[in-house]
Amino acid sequence: MQAIEDLDTPVVLIDLDKTERNIARMAQHASAAGVALRPHGKTHKVPEVARMQLRAGAKGLTLAKVGEAEVFVAAGIDDIFLAYPIVGGRKAERLLALADKARLIVGADSEAGARSLSDVFAKAGRTLDVRVKVDVGLHRVGVEPKDARALAEKIAAMPGLRLRGVFTHAGQGYHCDTEDGIAAVGKHEAETLSEVARELRAAGLPCEDVSVGSTPTAVHAMRADVTEARPGTYVYYDATQTNLGICTLDDCAITVLATVVSVPAADRAVLDAGSKMLSSDPLRPKPVAHGFLLGRESRVLRLSEEHGVVGVVPGESFRVGDRVQVIPNHACVVSNLQDKVYAVRKGRVEAEWPVAARGKVL
Amino acid sequence: MQAIEDLDTPVVLIDLDKTERNIARMAQHASAAGVALRPHGKTHKVPEVARMQLRAGAKGLTLAKVGEAEVFVAAGIDDIFLAYPIVGGRKAERLLALADKARLIVGADSEAGARSLSDVFAKAGRTLDVRVKVDVGLHRVGVEPKDARALAEKIAAMPGLRLRGVFTHAGQGYHCDTEDGIAAVGKHEAETLSEVARELRAAGLPCEDVSVGSTPTAVHAMRADVTEARPGTYVYYDATQTNLGICTLDDCAITVLATVVSVPAADRAVLDAGSKMLSSDPLRPKPVAHGFLLGRESRVLRLSEEHGVVGVVPGESFRVGDRVQVIPNHACVVSNLQDKVYAVRKGRVEAEWPVAARGKVL
Repeated sequence: MQAIEDLDTPVVLIDLDKTERNIARMAQHASAAGVALRPHGKTHKVPEVARMQLRAGAKGLTLAKVGEAEVFVAAGIDDIFLAYPIVGGRKAERLLALADKARLIVGADSEAGARSLSDVFAKAGRTLDVRVKVDVGLHRVGVEPKDARALAEKIAAMPGLRLRGVFTHAGQGYHCDTEDGIAAVGKHEAETLSEVARELRAAGLPCEDVSVGSTPTAVHAMRADVTEARPGTYVYYDATQTNLGICTLDDCAITVLATVVSVPAADRAVLDAGSKMLSSDPLRPKPVAHGFLLGRESRVLRLSEEHGVVGVVPGESFRVGDRVQVIPNHACVVSNLQDKVYAVRKGRVEAEWPVAARGKVL
Repeated sequence: MQAIEDLDTPVVLIDLDKTERNIARMAQHASAAGVALRPHGKTHKVPEVARMQLRAGAKGLTLAKVGEAEVFVAAGIDDIFLAYPIVGGRKAERLLALADKARLIVGADSEAGARSLSDVFAKAGRTLDVRVKVDVGLHRVGVEPKDARALAEKIAAMPGLRLRGVFTHAGQGYHCDTEDGIAAVGKHEAETLSEVARELRAAGLPCEDVSVGSTPTAVHAMRADVTEARPGTYVYYDATQTNLGICTLDDCAITVLATVVSVPAADRAVLDAGSKMLSSDPLRPKPVAHGFLLGRESRVLRLSEEHGVVGVVPGESFRVGDRVQVIPNHACVVSNLQDKVYAVRKGRVEAEWPVAARGKVL
């Protein structure tokens, strides 16, 4: 096994001990709450990690893109929810091909979107499972809770589709300043979605699945009629989750190993890891850094594509050639920038994992 | 030839007419000023585009990473400047191998960094050309102008290295509110660097190359003793360059073709292109949008990984399934997210270009 010291930089390291611990803890939370776990694979995009999650009890995987599903199905993962309003055409044809090999569910939040899937599946004499996306406050996609039943009725009546339930993503939790605030968002998500589910059932519509999303709110939303949770980032955690109080720095399993390439001033050191490694995603809830340094108080304060500019705090010093590990603001986007990551344990590389679903945007 | 309408979304389109016009114009500027052009290839990362630039008179290419140089050298580009403070070890060994196939110059801004290159090249009995990076106000990497001579003297004395000159990158131009401000930054860059060059020559040090960087300041910095300019983004331009007044919207050759997947409210439409397509790089100089829409006043106002949320202005409307072209904030980072781009002319796809140097971070 290779030592971390022998890796050239910049590279992404995944700490296996921490990853395993994160997976086990969330599995325990879900199990204790009697809620199924369907982790979002966008955080890692690595089939090996998905298999760790499934071995720990996850019932399947969540993804966003058909191209991601193709990668994970090819790797043997056979139960996938695309938590995204897929709009048909070529994507519906590809879903049809995938449906031979895996159990698929997709999201919908419009009649036109659902129709584009119905057209293809009905023509092929097949059925696709669909969940209706409900907006519980993020105001991105999804129908208002009051409009969910009307869309559900239309979808239930479309040939080639089978209404399975409802889902949401309370991403507004990322903008909360306090843990109480996040807990309230999760509770609101679960209760609002459960109410929608009861309304659907009262109208005679099927609603087996009541599925909530997001790592910050996951534990708080495992309540009421919720049947499934879809956290993603918990597998690695990151600086934003730490900042939100969802995890500790010690839980963060993903770091960028970088080298100091320039120390132009006493208060400035520059790393060979810029936005091509760390992405320019801001730290939540306040954008005060572009990454935390393991074992240092100094932080990455500015990024350009190939430079991470560290603001050196008094008492710390950096020399050209020094190596540091940076905890990134946002784990998911870091994975998407990498062709491969290094799975490490106690300073040794145990595996190189291709980020098989990187860049699968179609 | 495929029509754009037949492409699934999201994909990146490169308008060939505009790219050719942008290349020709910058080549004319450089030629008129008697300054050599060495475009930064990070914007496109595509050998086919580099060859267009060379055919228009560019003397060579600028890159940042050894891995990028390996890709372009393999594609037959044989004159490359790595405008980055390369810190040796394995990278120096790879540069040694590359030096058999191409003319290489690298940047340095520290004695330790230069020494790490000297060690490897001297031991192999070879010589590597080096330029000293001078900080003219960006405060990222580079020595202060007053310290350039001291570092240049040390490098000139190191075995295995040949001092070639000085270079800079006045990236602070991206934070200027006015065209006059940008012009002043470019003038300051050229004059400061020229003064450093004269100081080196007066001290008996070689300083053939006086090289300036950045698209906004390029034309303004083609003056005094400057011998070379290294703009990158001009090849495609982008929303930031438009906003800075460096180009018009009509000059922007790179767009993301996207589909409207959700219209949850009258003032909100959501595209299937999020930060995985557009990156989360902010618009300069003010971060008021995440992309402009061709032919529309509405703009992308929020991004998550797979969603671009358009703020729909009064009088415009979007339907699920509509297609739009988004001019991204920053061309270079969009290229780095793509496995391939589509070269288009008058609505038809003329070529698919692999983004051969994407993700070459080492």
